Order: sequence, then structure tokens, then C-alpha cells
Amino acid sequence: MNAQLPTELPAEIAALLKTDLDLIPAIAQDAKSGEVLMLAYMNRQSLSLTLKTGRATYWSRSRNELWEKGATSGHTQRVLAISLDCDGDAILIKVEQSGAACHTGEQSCFHNQVPLIHSAGER
Amino acid sequence: MNAQLPTELPAEIAALLKTDLDLIPAIAQDAKSGEVLMLAYMNRQSLSLTLKTGRATYWSRSRNELWEKGATSGHTQRVLAISLDCDGDAILIKVEQSGAACHTGEQSCFHNQVPLIHSAGER
Repeated sequence: MNAQLPTELPAEIAALLKTDLDLIPAIAQDAKSGEVLMLAYMNRQSLSLTLKTGRATYWSRSRNELWEKGATSGHTQRVLAISLDCDGDAILIKVEQSGAACHTGEQSCFHNQVPLIHSAGER
Repeated sequence: MNAQLPTELPAEIAALLKTDLDLIPAIAQDAKSGEVLMLAYMNRQSLSLTLKTGRATYWSRSRNELWEKGATSGHTQRVLAISLDCDGDAILIKVEQSGAACHTGEQSCFHNQVPLIHSAGER
């Protein structure tokens, strides 16, 4: 991570975020297919870097550090659009995904289907 | 909320969830359009109810209670598919949304676009 990169979030964007929230869940969606790829977390610094570099950058909760997606795997995410939800506590980013989004090699992290108990025909 | 409804999560599904996590972020996606509608939270009880009723039921962090989406607004979510992510700490549900998902009247809660600072042409 380049320490020279500015990491201050513009005030007008910071104002849209819920103030007491340090880590904001961020959904990465494939801009082309619409497939939801993964959910990770951003802090203000990683959101700022994402906006400035155009590459999805998260905050790794396990390693406690900035994590540019694909920095080691090469499976980067080029960001095409970002939006915040109505109450400023979730982020949606539309990306162009290089390779698989999941570390398992699956395209999406959401590959564990849960069987519905309810019959789809019932209301 | 009907107190008679069974709310125990089947063991094989519980085993897929990260054990130390009480509240799990749940992404609701429109099954037909692929639009990401909202992000809310589920606990094991609300996931169990969602599986059994086929209607998306979350845990309201502000009201500290089970929240069947649309119970008051009528803007219910009929659940067509559920999947968990690779490390069991996020849920994706594909829904048939009645009316608007957002309390503002917008179809999706993610209607606050954030301008990208980075030019899309750069790499």
C-alpha cells in the first residue's frame, strides 16, 4: 500500500455515512452479470482509496490492515460504480472482476446453497 | 410474530455459520432483475423463520426484535433462494419483492450514488 496516496474521504461523502460506524459492510456485485460476488468491510480510508484508485480496497478484519482485493492473487476488482444505502451503513460497489472473487476458486463467495424448508408454491 | 413457529435452525445449516457471530449481514437481491435491494441483519432465529415461512425475516437492530420485512408496509419479500458465503459470515437471499424495498419509496436502498474520483479510463 502506497503511503503517499491521499486517504482522506471527501467531506460530502463522509457526510453520507453513519457517523458512529467504523466498519461498513460492502457488497461487491459483478457489473455485467449482476452476480453478487462477496461481502467485505470498508473503513473510511479504504473507501477513500477505492474512490481514488478505482480498485476495490477493503479493511481486513482478520489481518487488521488495508486489503486491496487481488493484490496477491491478481483477482482484482475494477470499480465502475459505488452507492451507499439510505441510512449510510452499507456500500454497494459494481465491479469488473478479474478471475474468481472467492479464494476457493468459485466465481462468487456465495456458493453454499441453503435448502428452503418452505415449499415455494405456498404463500 | 407467531410464537408457535419453530425457530430452531437445523443443525446442518447452523454448522455452516461462523460460530461466534450473532448477527449476520444479509443481502436481499431481486431474483428477477438482479438488483441489490438492501442489506439487513439476521440472527439464527430470523434465518430459521425465513427458511420456514419463505418470507424474509430480519433482526431489527434499532428495535431489538424480529422484523418480518413488509409486515407493516406490505412490501414483503418472498424468498426464492438462500446461500451463505464461503466463511459463513454473510447471507445472500434472492427474493420476489412486493412494492419498493426501501422505506423512502425507492426500489433499492442503494440509491445514493457516490461519484468516482478516479477516471474509469485509467488502470
